[in-house]
Amino acid sequence: MTAPRIAHGGGIAAAAARFGGRPEDWLDLSTGINPIPAILPDVDIAAWHRLPDRQRQDAARLAAAQYYSTANALPLPVPGTQSVIQLLPRFVAAGRRAAVLSPTYGEYARVLENAGLPVDRITDLDAVSDAYGLVVVVNPNNPDGRLFSRATLLDLHARVARTGGLLVVDEAFGDMGPETCLSPLAGDETPGLLVFRSFGKFFGLAGLRLGFVIGETAVLDRIEDGLGPWAVSGPALTIATKLMTSDTSAIRLSIDARKASLDVTLSGAGLEIVGGTGLFSLVDHADAGTLHEGLCRHHILVRPFDYNPRWLRFGLAPDSVADARLAAALTDVIG
Amino acid sequence: MTAPRIAHGGGIAAAAARFGGRPEDWLDLSTGINPIPAILPDVDIAAWHRLPDRQRQDAARLAAAQYYSTANALPLPVPGTQSVIQLLPRFVAAGRRAAVLSPTYGEYARVLENAGLPVDRITDLDAVSDAYGLVVVVNPNNPDGRLFSRATLLDLHARVARTGGLLVVDEAFGDMGPETCLSPLAGDETPGLLVFRSFGKFFGLAGLRLGFVIGETAVLDRIEDGLGPWAVSGPALTIATKLMTSDTSAIRLSIDARKASLDVTLSGAGLEIVGGTGLFSLVDHADAGTLHEGLCRHHILVRPFDYNPRWLRFGLAPDSVADARLAAALTDVIG
Repeated sequence: MTAPRIAHGGGIAAAAARFGGRPEDWLDLSTGINPIPAILPDVDIAAWHRLPDRQRQDAARLAAAQYYSTANALPLPVPGTQSVIQLLPRFVAAGRRAAVLSPTYGEYARVLENAGLPVDRITDLDAVSDAYGLVVVVNPNNPDGRLFSRATLLDLHARVARTGGLLVVDEAFGDMGPETCLSPLAGDETPGLLVFRSFGKFFGLAGLRLGFVIGETAVLDRIEDGLGPWAVSGPALTIATKLMTSDTSAIRLSIDARKASLDVTLSGAGLEIVGGTGLFSLVDHADAGTLHEGLCRHHILVRPFDYNPRWLRFGLAPDSVADARLAAALTDVIG
Repeated sequence: MTAPRIAHGGGIAAAAARFGGRPEDWLDLSTGINPIPAILPDVDIAAWHRLPDRQRQDAARLAAAQYYSTANALPLPVPGTQSVIQLLPRFVAAGRRAAVLSPTYGEYARVLENAGLPVDRITDLDAVSDAYGLVVVVNPNNPDGRLFSRATLLDLHARVARTGGLLVVDEAFGDMGPETCLSPLAGDETPGLLVFRSFGKFFGLAGLRLGFVIGETAVLDRIEDGLGPWAVSGPALTIATKLMTSDTSAIRLSIDARKASLDVTLSGAGLEIVGGTGLFSLVDHADAGTLHEGLCRHHILVRPFDYNPRWLRFGLAPDSVADARLAAALTDVIG
């Protein structure tokens, strides 16, 4: 019943096995994670020792409400939004279809199709009809950075909710552009809207496995029931509580600086940047496959896309030494 | 469609709200977790920063195989075995029933019934008939410590597997008695057997959210698909890898000593111990409700059972000071 599982992660190890070098010596630009992890706050021993209790979860929910400016809902912590994607099939009423604005993060269509649901990969919001019980929009989108305004998405939401459907807006890359995020609007007053947020990408702590979902109480309750008690680790809740209530301006400045350096490097090599977010840039190149392999020979991994042989996604490099390494490799490969 | 959610965890805060005192000043004997957490090994920054990759997962699987002495399978790490209980309904074929050897950990029946499955709380293994597509046995059992031999469970497995059913043996409290554990036997050579292990209870790190499941490859693959990629955090995988390959004899000695002290304290107060495991003791008392409340007035929380008003479960106290505090409270309450 299930499609072949994808070898997510571990791309560096696989690449090193083919192109040589120790994995830790590779420059990994294949992800959209802030390459400079936030400084880990102290974690009390009880966070490790005890089951994460209601108080620890409530503290994280309040911190997330502040950080995401949610006025109408307390964000629900989850062990990565992937865990909620796994539950999405149960939110599609019998006989209805799912639409995923595409191309985008592949897990949505994969999980929905594995559950036997009819999925349409739409490329335009105008394609959303009453046939859809679930519509997924990643905003800004991964990998092309396509960005819809709040007004456009609220209009879409009204159309989807009118027929009892659910609009999922995945704001995994929304931290650097809060002005277009729907998080502040989600909640009981906006039934049929569910917003996904990623903690690990902006804070550079993807290993923690933490995300938040924001929406109406009844939907969050169903998600909580689906995940079961104690779904999020105590250390993750504690670290999030502290970081989300701290001053994040230094993180923002650092990401802005790293993104600017990346784009200078790419443009300097003559590459055309056709999209991106604060945490990655998308390059269009006539022979992206050869470019990808050439970078691999320099032990630099970027992200290709099987559905588009002209695209490569470049994540942020951690520092100027890495920028220079990328620039030198690009010069060598492109000539 | 779902039963009321249970307020798991947070018992101390609720009790403190009713009986006074700061939660951190309460003595929490309401869990079955080793009260002395293992010393946390160093966690490399990449474990926090990156998505947990295949290599990190494979290292944890090898460490768990060594620790659980699995000869036929690599244990699959999961974010707490609760996350797999949530998936159990999909392993019951249409038209078949589930049996849970009871009384036991309440989440099995709760999750299965919430999924609309017919569940029988059997009290004897002889009640297992061909009607059951899923049979759950916690061994040793929580809270009464009921323990079946390997031979008995293998006989049960043969009966369940003969009809294509699945036997789940939850060895959450098995670390202190490996000689009765089925973990070493689970794998492709024993189809229809699935063993659950808890990492947090023995190592005193329940906040980490980590467990392992051991069984045939096809079943582990379905669980992995159900959880999705990156289900377990990088720090959890790293800590488990290090602790499961370290010398655990000091932990065992410490648990043995704490358990002996607990039983001396309980017996010294004239209480009858009717069951238990290495990590808790079950007391039978004519008026357990009054005893529970009396201990609450001393800011000591133990575990009552709504289905048996004569039972109280006492977890291990962390040190001799806590032993003395419990002894004094019992003397005061029982007189």
